[in-house]
Amino acid sequence: MEEVVEELLTERILAAVKNRNAKELKEIFEVTPNIDIAEALDEVEDAAVFLYIFRTVNSEYTGDFFTELTIEQQEMIINAFTDKQLIDLLENSFADDIADTLEEMPANVVARVLKACPADLRKDVNNLLNYKDNTAGSVMTTEYLDMKDTLTVKEALKIIRQRGKDAETVYTVFVRDSKRNLMGTINLDDLIFAKDDEVLSDVMDRDFVTCNVNDDQEEVANMFKRYDLNAMAVVNNENKIIGIITIDDVVDIIVEEATEDIAHLNQISNMDEPYLKTPVYKLVLKCVPWIVVLMILQVFSTLVLSKFQDAMKVFAILPVLVPLLTDAGGNAGGQTTTLIVRSISLDEFGRGDFKRAVWKEFRVALCIACIISIFAFGLLMLEMAIGVADVTKPAEALGVNKITAMLVTASLVACTLFATMLVARLVACMFPFLAKKLKLDPAVVCGPFNTTIVDVISLLVYFTLWTFVFSHMLGL
Amino acid sequence: MEEVVEELLTERILAAVKNRNAKELKEIFEVTPNIDIAEALDEVEDAAVFLYIFRTVNSEYTGDFFTELTIEQQEMIINAFTDKQLIDLLENSFADDIADTLEEMPANVVARVLKACPADLRKDVNNLLNYKDNTAGSVMTTEYLDMKDTLTVKEALKIIRQRGKDAETVYTVFVRDSKRNLMGTINLDDLIFAKDDEVLSDVMDRDFVTCNVNDDQEEVANMFKRYDLNAMAVVNNENKIIGIITIDDVVDIIVEEATEDIAHLNQISNMDEPYLKTPVYKLVLKCVPWIVVLMILQVFSTLVLSKFQDAMKVFAILPVLVPLLTDAGGNAGGQTTTLIVRSISLDEFGRGDFKRAVWKEFRVALCIACIISIFAFGLLMLEMAIGVADVTKPAEALGVNKITAMLVTASLVACTLFATMLVARLVACMFPFLAKKLKLDPAVVCGPFNTTIVDVISLLVYFTLWTFVFSHMLGL
Repeated sequence: MEEVVEELLTERILAAVKNRNAKELKEIFEVTPNIDIAEALDEVEDAAVFLYIFRTVNSEYTGDFFTELTIEQQEMIINAFTDKQLIDLLENSFADDIADTLEEMPANVVARVLKACPADLRKDVNNLLNYKDNTAGSVMTTEYLDMKDTLTVKEALKIIRQRGKDAETVYTVFVRDSKRNLMGTINLDDLIFAKDDEVLSDVMDRDFVTCNVNDDQEEVANMFKRYDLNAMAVVNNENKIIGIITIDDVVDIIVEEATEDIAHLNQISNMDEPYLKTPVYKLVLKCVPWIVVLMILQVFSTLVLSKFQDAMKVFAILPVLVPLLTDAGGNAGGQTTTLIVRSISLDEFGRGDFKRAVWKEFRVALCIACIISIFAFGLLMLEMAIGVADVTKPAEALGVNKITAMLVTASLVACTLFATMLVARLVACMFPFLAKKLKLDPAVVCGPFNTTIVDVISLLVYFTLWTFVFSHMLGL
Repeated sequence: MEEVVEELLTERILAAVKNRNAKELKEIFEVTPNIDIAEALDEVEDAAVFLYIFRTVNSEYTGDFFTELTIEQQEMIINAFTDKQLIDLLENSFADDIADTLEEMPANVVARVLKACPADLRKDVNNLLNYKDNTAGSVMTTEYLDMKDTLTVKEALKIIRQRGKDAETVYTVFVRDSKRNLMGTINLDDLIFAKDDEVLSDVMDRDFVTCNVNDDQEEVANMFKRYDLNAMAVVNNENKIIGIITIDDVVDIIVEEATEDIAHLNQISNMDEPYLKTPVYKLVLKCVPWIVVLMILQVFSTLVLSKFQDAMKVFAILPVLVPLLTDAGGNAGGQTTTLIVRSISLDEFGRGDFKRAVWKEFRVALCIACIISIFAFGLLMLEMAIGVADVTKPAEALGVNKITAMLVTASLVACTLFATMLVARLVACMFPFLAKKLKLDPAVVCGPFNTTIVDVISLLVYFTLWTFVFSHMLGL
């Protein structure tokens, strides 16, 4: 929302609450999405404001208003509510939303909320709280519509009218046999298009897919994308339906998983909370370990560089060009890692695709290595000619003329780049597949390893070439 | 799908087609999702197979089977179809799917398909083809249900039964007044829960949101997430509804936008196609420009390094530690860029948040700078003590004892890292906001600029400190 609009909304709501103008307040809730109201009030710390809102505005309009508030506000409201008010609020909420809220609350608040829950809701919430993070179980909801396959369409629609308000979605109805085995799914529109006396088993889709309660949420999201689903049944190890996942949850999963990939590919542990809502110490903890690990891994390139101190002393242009080599190699390898890791996340690779990917990357790497090494040769000649990379003194020290020094230097950098690009990209292409095979997260492990390997390779090639030139061509 | 399962499916389908076993083929389509069948057949290049499938299997089951095939297969099928068959296929497809397919086809195929389209469908497809990529218009569909606000619930349900099959979704009905102004939306479940004789204007939600046809698709996706929508109306500049976007399209947008961010943050132009389906030359074009740009920008750090050739000759441990400095600075800055850019993409920053972000990052940067510089001091002392970074000869060259050389070197690296980390992260935090203000894509412009600035700063600080030590403390 525009800032000005949001400020006006804040003022209007607070004025309505202050003046006990119930009509105005109801009107605001009727025409404004809950999230906009929640955000307009995100700095309100007075429980009385919210108590008045919940007392005044019909629960039809407050809907998920509570879950849109900040954790601090939610806690404040729960503490300010009487048991009766708390029960009303909970009866209008879904088990998965309650579980999400409770995960962030202190233990005494959790206990009070669970006590206020009606027995069956409490059982559901408790179950949801027990599933491991990022599994299908942790995101599913237990409130869905399932019906026996012998019902008629008319009976099914009647059940929807009766029980539908308590379900997270009525757009997909799950059809089961008498033993609770899932037989098919029916979308609400198909029910509406069908004739009243048709039997569910004749109308239902039999080509449904399900996921296991322990499946990773990323797999679940990929199935939703692949099969264009609105809702999917979650089954236990006995293949009985125990919950469903709906597409609005999947939208959140997709965003979360993409953000996780972005974080890992850029050396951050994870980014599970909005930046401004993450405490400083947590941000530090997310960033520091990676810098430390990368620094330690750098010991190998330090070792290589250290061994060639003499060469760098003899010909002082050598170290000047080291960052150019390692950066270009790192960038090229990083590009490949990113391409492959993202494709793996999106489940794009199938049977036989490892070989295809390596063959494709080999050709890509060959082209890029050619282009970049030729370009680097030209760029370096130019930089040395105009003195950006000053080769005058090094040439003198070697006792060769400046043009020779320039040509040799640019050629050696070009050759090194060629070799580095080729190896860097091929390694970067194979690594993620290997990581996946070893059940490691490719996004996490590939970045640092690539950089380390690439650095060492480029430095070794570079200095080996120089040593050869020094000893065989210049007789040093 | 498991590889083995997929191979079995391929065999079963091809056998059924070969033996003209219509019953078996129908059964397969009934119980298997279209995408799985399409993938099992992804290497079939015989149009006759598909012609038999489309002729044999009821269109209720082939559904979007056509759009799941590869571009090459689609083109082949269109060319093999008679006009009559083509018309049948098109009549069972939605305008937005047809437009998506046509975008990838050669001109003669496009012309033939458009000719075969019924007049009103052709108009819709043509319109969709004209919207700019990545706008709401380019992803919307023109087949939706809108109804006048004076209708009763019973009448509305009757219209859904009659016209619903042609609409992309019947889960959201758009309610308009007699002048085609959008007045509200109704979800199908609310229609089912409502009484038959209620009027739509009493049942509808008035707190709906819309987007403009020219809005960026990323904004649209953020609105879906924010408001938990199933479908949203797209309006033109006169605020009249001209199409809708449904949540299944949004899932694709979210994946696409996240992939774009991932690409840009890792120096790739874009990744709009699956890796294996992108031709080699395109992959080269996506990667090369960035490496080239980064290499050119590196001219500044080359210049700095070149100026300090003498210093590096005097004390040869100096260049050995340069990669450690630039890499650590680059990593730290890259982390901040990633955190801020992703938050901007997810629309997490609101009024006054720029200052809050800078203040937060200042504290984070200070902590990280302290930790890393202390850690680096220790690590370097260790590396020099065990000879990984050999300081013996440089110390001799300077005429100081080894311990002094180690202490001075480690201290200077630590100081440089402290300054670099602080500046790198603060710059990296402010840059994306600036880019957004200038209407540039933060993910695209921030990476390279950061690296360049960080490299130059760290090298300048490092060598300035050394120059000071050399001239004032060692009297060189």
